[in-house]
Amino acid sequence: MATDAPDFNPDVHPHRRFNPLLGEYVLVSPHRANRPWQGQVEEPQKSDKPQYDPKCYLCPGNARTSGHNNPEYTSVYTFPNDFAAVLPPPLPEVQPAGHPLLKIQPVDGACDVVVFHPRHDLTLARLKTEEIVNVVDEWCRIYRERGCQDNIKYVQIFENKGAMMGCSNPHPHGQAWSTSSIPNIPAKELESLAQYSTSEAVSPATAPKGPNGRPCLLCDYAHLEASEASSVRTVFKNEDWIAVVPWWAIWPFEILLLPHRRHIPSVLDLTPDEKGSLANIISKITIRYDNLFSCSFPYSMGLHQRPTPNSNTSSGGPHDEHDVAHMHFHFEPPLLRSSTVRKFLVGYELMAEPQRDLTPEQAASRLRACSDVHYLDGASVVQEP
Amino acid sequence: MATDAPDFNPDVHPHRRFNPLLGEYVLVSPHRANRPWQGQVEEPQKSDKPQYDPKCYLCPGNARTSGHNNPEYTSVYTFPNDFAAVLPPPLPEVQPAGHPLLKIQPVDGACDVVVFHPRHDLTLARLKTEEIVNVVDEWCRIYRERGCQDNIKYVQIFENKGAMMGCSNPHPHGQAWSTSSIPNIPAKELESLAQYSTSEAVSPATAPKGPNGRPCLLCDYAHLEASEASSVRTVFKNEDWIAVVPWWAIWPFEILLLPHRRHIPSVLDLTPDEKGSLANIISKITIRYDNLFSCSFPYSMGLHQRPTPNSNTSSGGPHDEHDVAHMHFHFEPPLLRSSTVRKFLVGYELMAEPQRDLTPEQAASRLRACSDVHYLDGASVVQEP
Ligand SMILES: [Zn+2]
Ligand SMILES: [Zn+2]
Repeated sequence: MATDAPDFNPDVHPHRRFNPLLGEYVLVSPHRANRPWQGQVEEPQKSDKPQYDPKCYLCPGNARTSGHNNPEYTSVYTFPNDFAAVLPPPLPEVQPAGHPLLKIQPVDGACDVVVFHPRHDLTLARLKTEEIVNVVDEWCRIYRERGCQDNIKYVQIFENKGAMMGCSNPHPHGQAWSTSSIPNIPAKELESLAQYSTSEAVSPATAPKGPNGRPCLLCDYAHLEASEASSVRTVFKNEDWIAVVPWWAIWPFEILLLPHRRHIPSVLDLTPDEKGSLANIISKITIRYDNLFSCSFPYSMGLHQRPTPNSNTSSGGPHDEHDVAHMHFHFEPPLLRSSTVRKFLVGYELMAEPQRDLTPEQAASRLRACSDVHYLDGASVVQEP
Repeated sequence: MATDAPDFNPDVHPHRRFNPLLGEYVLVSPHRANRPWQGQVEEPQKSDKPQYDPKCYLCPGNARTSGHNNPEYTSVYTFPNDFAAVLPPPLPEVQPAGHPLLKIQPVDGACDVVVFHPRHDLTLARLKTEEIVNVVDEWCRIYRERGCQDNIKYVQIFENKGAMMGCSNPHPHGQAWSTSSIPNIPAKELESLAQYSTSEAVSPATAPKGPNGRPCLLCDYAHLEASEASSVRTVFKNEDWIAVVPWWAIWPFEILLLPHRRHIPSVLDLTPDEKGSLANIISKITIRYDNLFSCSFPYSMGLHQRPTPNSNTSSGGPHDEHDVAHMHFHFEPPLLRSSTVRKFLVGYELMAEPQRDLTPEQAASRLRACSDVHYLDGASVVQEP
């Protein structure tokens, strides 16, 4: 390399970053961040919702498509999805399709809808911390109850928010799909966590450890981001949790939210304090999201954790292979430049590899700069320098 | 299983199908296909485009953002993208980020824009077969030229079509991104092809064989679909090529287009006849796509092939590891029910596993039923029974 060549600068020069959870790369093109926008402009999400919408199938007392009526619930409320993607057993036995390349597998389970709050016009970003604790408690209940059913191997808790995400109902709610198989992404992550735990990873002495004192990929990563002097990818951190735009983020303002103080396989392992600090950080990051572009920020959010509850863990009993799970949330929002300009995962990204322009460090810096008072509560949004 | 239980029916009962190219599952929920649509409705793509648009940066003679002017081209026309995601070498050396979990890799290369035709108002579905042959020839030229540059490891040819895919310019064009690394998806596919070729796969004697007479996953799959009496997943087939909605399709009307008569690693291995039949089948399937919902059908299309040209292959020289590649095209269209109702890959699908309602066999049947005369040419679209 010529001595007069510029130094490598990840905020300027294209490069690829590796996602150790999925074993995949993301192409980063920071030099392209200021290209003119030629793409589609979206309808911004309106924020003038009524507190109660007589046509909403999630509001208290209203009728659903199934003919059932919602009760006059006052906190969280869960019911089975009227159009579940999986059905409860028994199902007829799957017939092999007659060729090894036509591989087919049975699946059964249940899909639940989890309404976060009776009010139609609220979102996680507009709930009080105590109200978010109620949601966390409901996740615990569903994970325990569905996860203890004989056939269930995984309980996928997620939220899909905003018309831009294909979610037409703004009433605050998430879902929990429980299945007789571990889905692709959690399965791949568990594989990476298991591999890391048996590798000779150089885990710092100060980092929390996984089961049997083995290194944990996500404990190490959380520790690294939480202790780094510069904290360039940190959006918010409290005593138990850290929210970062991960090194390998695909979506412009993607966030990985995870515990940084100890190894926590599932929501059932949380102490009351950890539930409180979880609700606190969910509030802090969803408020920053809304403040970023002064809109109700669309995203998909997912909770990855132990495939199914382990009754041994809390009683200090022996570990099993699934205890390598370190619970965490992915927030994947599509917005890129404003409330009306989104990123599309298409073309090269569908066919070859995800790509981003803005670096994770730049995204984290912008989210950190946002106020943690919601813009609808009159806070002026802090502008980027 | 109780004797009065119904037989398993893949058009009715939920199940998972395996994608042997990516090693991943897709969740199929056919029982859900007739749930009421509650999602977002999109703007349909208009088809009243002018033949020449003075504001289009791709039309002949017009100025681009870079300040360059397009020539008065009369067939295909290729130029380097003015906002390339990767840059040509030399780039400064990548500095390690100081922790094994912060893995970073250098990348360089080039991004080309490939304009299919001078006319602003046409698409592949509206081009004559000879004009599509010109596009195939241009793909060959780019693949050879870029693929022979020292640093290049992969040439990803793709097309992203339609405002719904974030592509605002309707002028018919694709792209070719050449990179110093093999991107995730082609890399994973090559791995699966290599694995299959050394496995004890039960390849029928009549199926074409890969290099050194070894079985090829995609030769076997194409042979299976091409020879199956019922052809339930076939959309169209000619002497050399077959277009199927693959067993493991994620997108409602996804198509896998590949050679079924012999193993073909890359576009440079095509005979003139095979180029003609390729242009023929591209025309047949893009016309059916447009006819399905009487609109200019949006999609992302990608060509997977040998990482870089092998000068030995055509001269009958020795094979190398990359000859396991069997060239193929993926068409991934978002539309689901009409020109205005799309599928979103969000929520459970982003966090856990792709999911579909309509089965691949149902989708193939609907595409087969479409006329192969374009609806704008006055053909009445054949309705589903
Ligand atoms: Zn995860
Ligand atoms: Zn492929």
